[in-house]
Amino acid sequence: MLTAAPSTPELTAVQIIDRCCQDARQASTSLKRMSNTAKAEALRAAAKALRADTAEILAANARDCEAGAARGLTPALLDRLRLDPARLATIAESVDAVAALPDPVGEEIDRRTAPAGMTLRRVRVPIGVIGIIYESRPNVTIDAAALCVRSGNAVILRGGSEAMHSNRALHASFVRGLNGAGIGASAVQLVPTQDRDAVGAMLAASGGIDLIIPRGGKSLVARVQADARVPVLAHLDGICHSFVHAAADPDMAKAIVVNAKLRRTGICGAMETLLIDRDYPDAASLLAALADGGCEVRGDDMVLELEPRAVSASDEDWDTEYLDAIVSAAFVDGLDGALAHIARHSSGHTDAIITSDASAAARFQAEVDSAIVMVNASSQFADGGEFGLGAEIGIATGRLHARGPVALEGLTTYKWLVEGTGQVRA
Amino acid sequence: MLTAAPSTPELTAVQIIDRCCQDARQASTSLKRMSNTAKAEALRAAAKALRADTAEILAANARDCEAGAARGLTPALLDRLRLDPARLATIAESVDAVAALPDPVGEEIDRRTAPAGMTLRRVRVPIGVIGIIYESRPNVTIDAAALCVRSGNAVILRGGSEAMHSNRALHASFVRGLNGAGIGASAVQLVPTQDRDAVGAMLAASGGIDLIIPRGGKSLVARVQADARVPVLAHLDGICHSFVHAAADPDMAKAIVVNAKLRRTGICGAMETLLIDRDYPDAASLLAALADGGCEVRGDDMVLELEPRAVSASDEDWDTEYLDAIVSAAFVDGLDGALAHIARHSSGHTDAIITSDASAAARFQAEVDSAIVMVNASSQFADGGEFGLGAEIGIATGRLHARGPVALEGLTTYKWLVEGTGQVRA
Repeated sequence: MLTAAPSTPELTAVQIIDRCCQDARQASTSLKRMSNTAKAEALRAAAKALRADTAEILAANARDCEAGAARGLTPALLDRLRLDPARLATIAESVDAVAALPDPVGEEIDRRTAPAGMTLRRVRVPIGVIGIIYESRPNVTIDAAALCVRSGNAVILRGGSEAMHSNRALHASFVRGLNGAGIGASAVQLVPTQDRDAVGAMLAASGGIDLIIPRGGKSLVARVQADARVPVLAHLDGICHSFVHAAADPDMAKAIVVNAKLRRTGICGAMETLLIDRDYPDAASLLAALADGGCEVRGDDMVLELEPRAVSASDEDWDTEYLDAIVSAAFVDGLDGALAHIARHSSGHTDAIITSDASAAARFQAEVDSAIVMVNASSQFADGGEFGLGAEIGIATGRLHARGPVALEGLTTYKWLVEGTGQVRA
Repeated sequence: MLTAAPSTPELTAVQIIDRCCQDARQASTSLKRMSNTAKAEALRAAAKALRADTAEILAANARDCEAGAARGLTPALLDRLRLDPARLATIAESVDAVAALPDPVGEEIDRRTAPAGMTLRRVRVPIGVIGIIYESRPNVTIDAAALCVRSGNAVILRGGSEAMHSNRALHASFVRGLNGAGIGASAVQLVPTQDRDAVGAMLAASGGIDLIIPRGGKSLVARVQADARVPVLAHLDGICHSFVHAAADPDMAKAIVVNAKLRRTGICGAMETLLIDRDYPDAASLLAALADGGCEVRGDDMVLELEPRAVSASDEDWDTEYLDAIVSAAFVDGLDGALAHIARHSSGHTDAIITSDASAAARFQAEVDSAIVMVNASSQFADGGEFGLGAEIGIATGRLHARGPVALEGLTTYKWLVEGTGQVRA
């Protein structure tokens, strides 16, 4: 087949991103003014389009999966990439679920009267233009787009090249649905080039993109955090601790610790380090439960003494996010020892205490400086859905704007509305 | 006088800032745990110390003023630099006022029950370590330090070299007061070198400083925004608009516009551009009032026609923050024309409408995308104190974390406290 020569000179990645940003800014102006109902309706139309386009989307996905297999992607990566009718149905359902969430935009955060008599209100408004940089999971295309539209933001999506055909098909379908309900294509853009410079251009697009959220592995997040000139919401590591206090209920401790480590080992809220109070009476059976569950236990000397299957932990183990059936385990001197270990090694994501002593729990919650601090619960609950926020766009361990699970509210900012009756300043 | 040779090799600016950050982080751990009462008491002790040290502080300030005069600083700059007994008393009073403000730390932002039954609370906590980079006003040393301590944050202060002696004396006195009340010197540090590389080191101190707030002129803010690898709260420009709608009350419009422009021309909330509805019946007298007040009016053709003292505006005038008795003035086609002009030229700081038409006011507030949107009030009210927030550390025009006047709440973040009864995730 002959290919016609391009009629216009090819744009560079920087020019492409610049155009995306300009279009997105324009779209964000209309999105900001859309009513709750209109946004919800558009999302339901998009979900409907995804269902109607199932065949095309799965065909596109099959191309990516074939190419991935040919390139020798690992089974785990291929599984992340793969869509099937059930997975696509779940994606469409989640769009409907986001449509049903309450709209944060327009919410009055507070109201006060100024000393000079004006009424002051702070009201939530969309942030503007959000950039999402992600890897091989094609569902992120839709999940992120739905949350951005729901909160009145325009979004620029940049997915991994291994999911290119899937992302294009999902995006085309989603946007077709939105279009039918009055939201223009610029509101949800998929970066139209796989040129790697496009990521750098997004990270540099200060003024064009208001917030970047990376979704993917540690190397992606590290690169985004290192290079971005635009604010970033993300977490780099989830080195989550569970501390079994002397006053913990042994059955509860065992159930929580095994769940926190082994329910799913690959999520950021999975426990990576188990801290056991030297005065906790049931430590041997706690360690045995983990080893029985197929977990490799890397411990200090006391752990090695109590659990014959344990191996010796190295210094790096206390700073390692395994995302696997491996746990580091150490004995500590009571609450003080646990707080000191966590202050030194936690990544500020989620840390938990198991105890029936309310004052120990209160001190743990006051002094642990992490986004999420739990008492008597599995750290695997560190998730926007499990928090009842509906859905999350990510978990943030930074200290500004939003912390912990970031959902619709984290995709908004506020403005001050001042209503006077002719006040002038003295 | 002989000077002893330094016994240790001199530290580089980067090493000095690194040490400041480490000390500040340590101090922030204790500050985070301090009670409301203890922080308030420490601030009152610091205010007392400032009053007790009046003679030393004024002597140090006199050295700066003499040096500044010898270097040929402008009268305006010298005035900013100068302290006198009354100004110092005001600074001490403002510390007492900050001590009396409600403590945001510990405030519960929301509470919900997770689907699995845990109680979830979001509670405000200090951000951690704040960096303040400022110019010649020595009062910033104390104002910023007081707000940071009040909100449980450690602070690293870097003032201008022209105020070096003043800042050192103020800082030494303030810290002496805090020390007496149990807050260590590392909680409030003044960068101990005037080496300009120290600013760069602060801007690069990702992980060491959690937030940087520049206080000063546009070139300082622009440099901080361009170079910082640490989040920044700031505003670059205050290009504030007042739109006099067709349905504005003429007396109110005149009073507000004159106040917004001329009360103090050098503040960021001063009006820089006046927009007049073509259908507003009293435009000539509005323009005359500004000119009568000594304001240079730079206008479009219709302005020139109505006000003989007006001069012709150039394209740049619509994007200029004069901070002086100069205003740009244009006629626009109703609300739509005003919204279009503001969307194009506003710096996102403060924009105002003067109208007695409630629906025009509502649309203006909905569609103007600025940190502060006012109806029937002077833009000179754009100030944390005037908003009843007690005091402000600055005004932010960014879209993340805090927007508009930033006071104590803006110096906090939150954490999620989860309380379960043994929940594990299914």
